[in-house]
Order: sequence, then C-alpha cells, then structure tokens
Amino acid sequence: MADLIVAKIGGKVVSNLAMLDKFLRQFSDITGKKILVHGGGAKASSLAKSLGLSVQIVEGRRITDRAMLDIVTMVYGGLINKQIVATLQSCGCDALGLTGADGNIIQADKRKVDEIDFGFVGDISCINSNRIHQLLTMGITPAIAPLTHNGRGLLLNTNADTIAATIAREMSSWYKVRLYSCFEKSGVLESTDDPDSVLRSLSYNQFQEMKNSGVIADGMIPKLDTGFEALQNGVYSVSICLAEDFEEVIKGEIKANYTQLILPKSINV
Amino acid sequence: MADLIVAKIGGKVVSNLAMLDKFLRQFSDITGKKILVHGGGAKASSLAKSLGLSVQIVEGRRITDRAMLDIVTMVYGGLINKQIVATLQSCGCDALGLTGADGNIIQADKRKVDEIDFGFVGDISCINSNRIHQLLTMGITPAIAPLTHNGRGLLLNTNADTIAATIAREMSSWYKVRLYSCFEKSGVLESTDDPDSVLRSLSYNQFQEMKNSGVIADGMIPKLDTGFEALQNGVYSVSICLAEDFEEVIKGEIKANYTQLILPKSINV
Repeated sequence: MADLIVAKIGGKVVSNLAMLDKFLRQFSDITGKKILVHGGGAKASSLAKSLGLSVQIVEGRRITDRAMLDIVTMVYGGLINKQIVATLQSCGCDALGLTGADGNIIQADKRKVDEIDFGFVGDISCINSNRIHQLLTMGITPAIAPLTHNGRGLLLNTNADTIAATIAREMSSWYKVRLYSCFEKSGVLESTDDPDSVLRSLSYNQFQEMKNSGVIADGMIPKLDTGFEALQNGVYSVSICLAEDFEEVIKGEIKANYTQLILPKSINV
Repeated sequence: MADLIVAKIGGKVVSNLAMLDKFLRQFSDITGKKILVHGGGAKASSLAKSLGLSVQIVEGRRITDRAMLDIVTMVYGGLINKQIVATLQSCGCDALGLTGADGNIIQADKRKVDEIDFGFVGDISCINSNRIHQLLTMGITPAIAPLTHNGRGLLLNTNADTIAATIAREMSSWYKVRLYSCFEKSGVLESTDDPDSVLRSLSYNQFQEMKNSGVIADGMIPKLDTGFEALQNGVYSVSICLAEDFEEVIKGEIKANYTQLILPKSINV
C-alpha cells in the first residue's frame, strides 16, 4: 500500500501568516501523496463584525445562519483556500483547492435542530474516496476547505478536524494513511498550564479520564474523538503536533514533542 | 476530435439568481464535455462598499488594490464559484470549481503599470491544457472563476472573457471547441437602442467599423477581440447569446437570436 499523509491545520495557524507560511513550506517538502485540510481562522468573525453581523458561538461552535454561511463560503472557500493553494503552488506543490461540493467529494446532511439550532452546519454522510484517489494519482495535492454540500445545492459549514479524520479513514482502504493534526500547541498537555507537559502518547481510556476531569476540553474533544475513531477504522497513525514542528514530526525525529494516539481503546465497548 | 463546449457567463447573469439558476440548469443538460467560466458580478463592489472601501473603475475596468484583491478572491473564488458548483452538482453535473492557481491551470503576469496602474490584475501567460484535459477525461466539469496566479504566490484578478477565449483556443488542439459567451443581451446589436437589432453574424471588419463608430463599446470590445482571436486560432465557433437562450442556441434552433462571429477577418494583416 502506498503512503498517504493527511495533514490538518487549525484556525490559529491559518490566522498567523508567518506560522502558516512556515507550515506550508514544510508540507510542500513532503515528496509522497498528501492531502491538506484547513480550518477557518478568525477572519470569518472579523469580516462578520465589520459588516455589522452578530457572531454567535455556542459551546465553542459557530452558529451558521444564512449570512454567516455566505461569509464562511467567502473566507474559507475563497480567501483562505486560494491563498493556501497559491502559496503551495509557489513552493512547487501542485495543490488544488476543494470544498466538499467540488467534484462532489464530501456530502453532508444539515444538522438536525436539537436543543441548539446550529444553522447551516453539515454532518458528513459520504466521502467520494474514488475521486480523491483519482486526483492524487494525477499528482494533485487536494487542499480542502471546511465546507461540504448536501447534494441539493446547499453548502454547509463543517468541522475541519472531522473532515480530516473522515477522509483519512475513508482513504485507508487505498493507502497507508498517517493523520497529523497540526495546531498552535505541541500536543495534548497533561497539565493545561504547562506547555512542556506534552503527552508522547494518549490512549482512549486516558482521553476519557482527562475529558471527565476537564483537562481536555473544547475543540480538543472533537479533534481527539474523530482521531481515535480514525485510528480504530484503519488509519495507520494519528498524531497531534505543533504546526511548526510538522517536518520533524513527519521524519520521526526525536527532538520534536508531539502526541501520538494509541490503541487499544474501547470506543464501542 | 471530441466536442467541447466552453461557456462564459457574464457578471449580470451571475448577479441575477433566477437568470443564473436557469442558465445553470441548461448548462447541466449538455451531455458532452464542457467548461464553465464565470464573471464577477456586482457583489464584489457591494461588499467593498459595505466595508467602507472605495471602488475604482477606470474605462470599465476595476482597479484591484490589495484590499480589493482579497474581496474578489472571496467573492469570485469563494461565494460565486462555490454556489455555482453546488447548484451544478444538484443538477447532476460533476462540477469542480477552480481559479487559475488550482492545479496551476492558468498562470498570468501582473499587468505592468502604464498610464493606469490596474493593481493586481493578471494577463494570461500560460494555460495548463493538459491538466484541464485530464479533468475533463475524468468526467469533471471545470467551473472557473476569473482569478489567476503568477506562480510565485500571488493571485491576480483576470477578465473572464479573456480566460474563456484563451482556454477555448488552447483546448482546440485536443477538441473541436465551441465557445459561447452568454450574457444579458441576445447578441451584438446593430443599434444599441434596439434590442431586436441582433446581428446573426459579425465579421472582424464589421466589428472594427462598429467599434470605430462607437456602436460597440466598453466590455463588448474585449469580449469580441478575444472571441475573434480564438476563432482565428483553431476554435470551431464563437457565439454571443442571451444566457436564457443558451439551450436553444446550443441546439442550433432557429428561433433563438444570437450573434455568431465569422471569418475571414484580418486581425494580423
């Protein structure tokens, strides 16, 4: 099986041009097949505020009404995605920007209204792994924005960690997939106040304990939930690392601190 | 040689949701290989104004400073392109949205400052016809936004008519290409005041005369200049038509009025 690297960069990396640029140069240097999934960054909120729209975040998640859907489509699918693609191209990486609608690569269902109406938010229903495989075979590096579609003309805002983990899982029937979630910290911290307390490995049981005790919270929960789910379903490795350390982590150099998720776990027990 | 249709839709069609929707449904119904190139529409200007930016248009052409480049990247590459792709997908057309940076399909040079500094505007230097051919062969319909890149990380605002005509010309070494420029009028009018005065055919000499007398002006000039240039260089046919009539024009039904460009012409004489 050929190797495939799926790298996700978080919103804070996307919002920091120096950090983003350094990451993209490291990502370009990977010689094998690779996919980039990027988060949203702060620009959508700042654009919304400039336009006098209210920004609603509930439990760390954005409420996406119709006006906000237009804004994330512009910012995630346009500004951020195209700047990333142009930068990767300038580094010799033949990137091609995609939302889930493009080539129908990711279909999703609009999230049902439960206690909270998240609005135009999509939960992934189908990954077109055959299409993604075709693009990779052509030498293309997909650069994927956190947007999906429902197949009936509606774009949907979708969590980038979930997209990265689901693509990693679905591509693992074609490739030996390594998933890297790159963000502004060195990994999962044993103590939230101590940036040096990076766990070199994290089991599912440890994750559950740390979640219950509140050490792991907010955006780390879906990142790890989907990471473990990917690992359970055929992905070869899942790592959480500092975006700046990406190259060292990829090469397996010892000096880089990062967190690797490990089995056994008990997600379905 | 296989057939290929290259259709361009203008900004006024893009800005009118009902007109756009009707056009996209007709475009989806084409069974053969096809490429869509879309213009920008009024949304970029309205967004700029909402953000308190000044909009400068000189001789019908937009001055693209750094802030405006971000806006057209958001609006053309994000909002408009992705809404078009999602709509085409809902009609069963496997569209994939692209700027020139994506898959490096269109490289351009930043326009040199002459009397006017147009800012971040690109003049096409290279079309990656091999990559476009590969995408078509996969059954993908490219939907192209009016943005290019310079290969060194810079996106550039580029005229959609020029993109459509240049792609049509370059693809004519692989395909029998028909180029359709679809907009809010039925074709080239003999008398600007009379919408029924559509010319069924227009020769290059007629075009020059009408340009000199001022009957053909503004955005029609680059549309026709690039159209004749495409026809001279291997494109099988070039037609200018009402977006709503697209299906009838494609089928060659007599009741649709539209303008077909005709050789002989004397562009290089």
